[in-house]
Formats: sequence, C-alpha cells, structure tokens
Amino acid sequence: MGEKQGNERTRVQIYGEEYTIKGTESSDHIIEVSNIVDEKMKELKTMNPYLDTKRLAVLTAVNIVNEYVLLKKEMQQLQKKLKEEE
Amino acid sequence: MGEKQGNERTRVQIYGEEYTIKGTESSDHIIEVSNIVDEKMKELKTMNPYLDTKRLAVLTAVNIVNEYVLLKKEMQQLQKKLKEEE
Repeated sequence: MGEKQGNERTRVQIYGEEYTIKGTESSDHIIEVSNIVDEKMKELKTMNPYLDTKRLAVLTAVNIVNEYVLLKKEMQQLQKKLKEEE
Repeated sequence: MGEKQGNERTRVQIYGEEYTIKGTESSDHIIEVSNIVDEKMKELKTMNPYLDTKRLAVLTAVNIVNEYVLLKKEMQQLQKKLKEEE
C-alpha cells in the first residue's frame, strides 16, 4: 500500500493529516488499519510528549514491527506444532 | 518500546537519524526490528519519491499494520485449526 500504488483509493486521516491510500485491499480494511496507526501514534505521544511527528511515526513503525516479529515467531511455533501433529 | 520506556537502551539509525530505543527486549532484537523499519522506509521511498519523511514514516506504519492484521487473521485460522484437531 502507498500513495501511488494499486487501484483502490481511500482517503483517511492519521494523526490529523489526510492520506490517500491506494492498494488492492478494501476501503474498510484500509480504514481499520489507518485507525490502528492513528491510535498507536496517539498512545506513544502520551508516553513521549516531546517527540515531533516524524520521530513519533518512526517509533510507531518500530513498535509495530516489534509486535509483527513477535507474532511471526509465535506463528512459526504454531506451524511447527501443527506439523508435528500431522 | 519508545524513547523513554524500559531499562535496555539501544542506539539505532533509522532513515539517517539516530534513535535511542528503550525497552525490555534485547539489543539484538531492537537492532533487527530497526533495520526492518529502515528497509521498509527506503523501499516505500523508491515507490513514492516525493513523500517527505514524516508522511513516509506514517505510510510505513500503515503498511506494517496491514501486514500485522493479515498475519493475525492467518494466525487465528491456524489456532482454530489446532483446536479442531484437539
């Protein structure tokens, strides 16, 4: 997803700014995802009140990748468990 | 993880800027995660060359949350499958 990819265009507001997200996913999905980013940025801002928006967005991305990597590892363990049971 | 949380301090470079990430995770894990964010920002920049860093970081976060939500759904299906097999 990005500002210049895919066919589906969805306008969203994230941390007070408008973005037009293009991608193959549904508008509902893009809105759900954008709301998560918006909430996470606001959450991080309360814990780091002096961060500017750029650094806040980068740290939000860091936090999400952290959760993604942990979930990925959990997923791999589940897949291993499923294979063992086959 | 954030700039003011946790005990472990790790200095990383993301998209040309230094961040001190504090958290309970190991430095190796934080470096791995930061490198993923750095790579994703650079990848998105090549597809959206006119984006400023703030918008680039927000869209990077959107892309990662998108992948996270899709992985989460995949994970829930796997867990359902595991339960059915019990």
